[in-house]
Amino acid sequence: MDLQLIRRLSIPADSKVVLCILDGLGGLAGARGRTELDEASTRHLDRLAEFGAVGQTQPAGVGVTVGSGPGHTALFGLDPFEFEIGRGALEATGIDFELGPNDLAARGNLCTVDSDGNITDRRAGRVATEITAEIAAQLSAIELPDAEVFVEAVREHRFVLVIRGEGLSPQISETDLQEEGVPPLLVTADDPGAERTADLVNRFVEQARSAIAGRDQANHLLLRGWSVRPSLPQLPELWKLRAAACTVYPMYRGLAQLAGMDAIDGGDNLESQFDALKRHWDDYDFFFVHYKATDGAGEDGDFARKVQSISDFDAQLPQLMALEPDVLVVTGDHSTPATMAAHSWHPVPMLISGTDVRMDSTKAFSELECVIGGLGTIPATELLPLAFAHAGRLAKYGA
Amino acid sequence: MDLQLIRRLSIPADSKVVLCILDGLGGLAGARGRTELDEASTRHLDRLAEFGAVGQTQPAGVGVTVGSGPGHTALFGLDPFEFEIGRGALEATGIDFELGPNDLAARGNLCTVDSDGNITDRRAGRVATEITAEIAAQLSAIELPDAEVFVEAVREHRFVLVIRGEGLSPQISETDLQEEGVPPLLVTADDPGAERTADLVNRFVEQARSAIAGRDQANHLLLRGWSVRPSLPQLPELWKLRAAACTVYPMYRGLAQLAGMDAIDGGDNLESQFDALKRHWDDYDFFFVHYKATDGAGEDGDFARKVQSISDFDAQLPQLMALEPDVLVVTGDHSTPATMAAHSWHPVPMLISGTDVRMDSTKAFSELECVIGGLGTIPATELLPLAFAHAGRLAKYGA
Repeated sequence: MDLQLIRRLSIPADSKVVLCILDGLGGLAGARGRTELDEASTRHLDRLAEFGAVGQTQPAGVGVTVGSGPGHTALFGLDPFEFEIGRGALEATGIDFELGPNDLAARGNLCTVDSDGNITDRRAGRVATEITAEIAAQLSAIELPDAEVFVEAVREHRFVLVIRGEGLSPQISETDLQEEGVPPLLVTADDPGAERTADLVNRFVEQARSAIAGRDQANHLLLRGWSVRPSLPQLPELWKLRAAACTVYPMYRGLAQLAGMDAIDGGDNLESQFDALKRHWDDYDFFFVHYKATDGAGEDGDFARKVQSISDFDAQLPQLMALEPDVLVVTGDHSTPATMAAHSWHPVPMLISGTDVRMDSTKAFSELECVIGGLGTIPATELLPLAFAHAGRLAKYGA
Repeated sequence: MDLQLIRRLSIPADSKVVLCILDGLGGLAGARGRTELDEASTRHLDRLAEFGAVGQTQPAGVGVTVGSGPGHTALFGLDPFEFEIGRGALEATGIDFELGPNDLAARGNLCTVDSDGNITDRRAGRVATEITAEIAAQLSAIELPDAEVFVEAVREHRFVLVIRGEGLSPQISETDLQEEGVPPLLVTADDPGAERTADLVNRFVEQARSAIAGRDQANHLLLRGWSVRPSLPQLPELWKLRAAACTVYPMYRGLAQLAGMDAIDGGDNLESQFDALKRHWDDYDFFFVHYKATDGAGEDGDFARKVQSISDFDAQLPQLMALEPDVLVVTGDHSTPATMAAHSWHPVPMLISGTDVRMDSTKAFSELECVIGGLGTIPATELLPLAFAHAGRLAKYGA
């Protein structure tokens, strides 16, 4: 739905909408010819499917596999190509580093170079996170003219670099050819307005290199994915409601915050997340709940654990149902079939439960049933408009 | 999928993709309430449908009937409205006349005019192809200032005119009102840059008229569909792969070549086409196989022959399956129901077979099953992205 149309038609209402994202929900048939969702115990989800309606969401078009960034942007109703979140910004979001308006972020790798300066290992032997943290602290001390430097370890060899200063530009090249046997590159400006930024980054890299050159491994660094804080349309303004994100992982909290949602403390599991919803039930109109376990198991290629993670979600559902949301939506940000051990392009099962849902013929929540479900296969960007329509939050267009 | 996005996300892979186009595949129920595809013996296609997934392709939107040009443009993933192939260029392609960058092509009809110069028969009594060839040879001798003339017979009264010269423009009018009882028109320039072209064409028509005016029939000619060589995005560049077209008919080979595919010699039947694939299996990543018999039978309104042509295709499939393509796609460029004896707007049955296909509930390849298939009804332009996603040839969008 066009954003101008949303602004025009959205109306406040006294209704509660909950969007549960089971990360990487969609699957493929395993050894027994049944998907993870088929094999899971989904008594409550099946009941919601029976008395509600199902369908599929398509994250970013036919055949397109998305990462978590665009997957969530789309679920928040925003075109994932128009509102692209750069790698640096996503990594910063993932470690809870809130980017400000003058921040330029990059995804960094510690790497190892030989005595000729050529890269021998782009990941510095996947150096321990603690060592990366030590190095990050050391590099954070680097001083640049009229700019501040922040370096934060992520995991293993990965870190985030944020340079804070007026007029910084992401229009600079990457130092990382994603090849070994070559030296890290100097940064160059892709447009004239980025020359100062390129100069600052090269100074940073030079000083960083001096600081760690004596190490056996992790003696150099690579920078890519330059990005500033993404400027996303804000859900509360678009939809005239109070929106809360209840997640366990910082990246998803950060993505939701970028779209204008408040973060409420979800603790570290689904039970504590649903508890948080209960505590804040009167404070918000829309709740985004993110469940990570499905994707982790899928990415690990662990079919049985993905099955279990879906069963676990189902077992907790009564706690959420007890809150009696007016509209409950369950889907994923993309498929992560355990058989592929990776994100995939396959559409994602989706269900909507609520008073004014047009019941379809489906009696279970599964990939097969969702293909023939009453909601059809829709772009993920259309999911929130559909949910809010069911919640009485979209006025009639025309008389 | 947007072409820029394809360029950005496509990656090389060690996988083989075969796209089989059964021209005019889709049908309508005949006297026994079953379509051509229902009646055909499709043991192998049904098995592919059972273990793969099916759906429908929509060549150019709801309700739009396409010709072979836009039908194939769309299957090659290119917007058939943005990349329009003019009638003249299509006719040239169909007789293996490779248009160069300075060529202007038109579709020609020999016609018959009376002593007042009014058209009495737009098709000159469907004059024999040999006579058209004689006349074409005669007209090829016409000389124009700073331009070369090529006239090639197609079939019956139809021919192709190509004028080769610097700065020729297709922005000129047609001489053919597609009416009888009126004289053929002079050509006029639709924009100032086309005036020289219009003048050249009028000189050609005048000389041609003098040359054949003495004949009883086929004593004049009509020209329409002015077009230059279409400039299509090239599949090998877009998708970073080696692409081959294996066809029997020159038009489809020509269309594929316009999209950057190499032509490999398909001989004159499906068996020799599949043999050619086997010979060239290591040379290419993507094979486009065109099967014409289905459309010919449909256009002739010959239900039984269309049924037989589908059965014949099915019988040859094991030869293709023996090559073990990673992804096999079967669909058509449009529907040609025998009951209509014409191309139609109906969606076209489609199937995809391969390792990471999400199985659906369908057990047969038919119009009815394809409606409820797991792949849904998608624009034909999305078919290649979907096929290449299944072949590991599309990288993830965003982190």
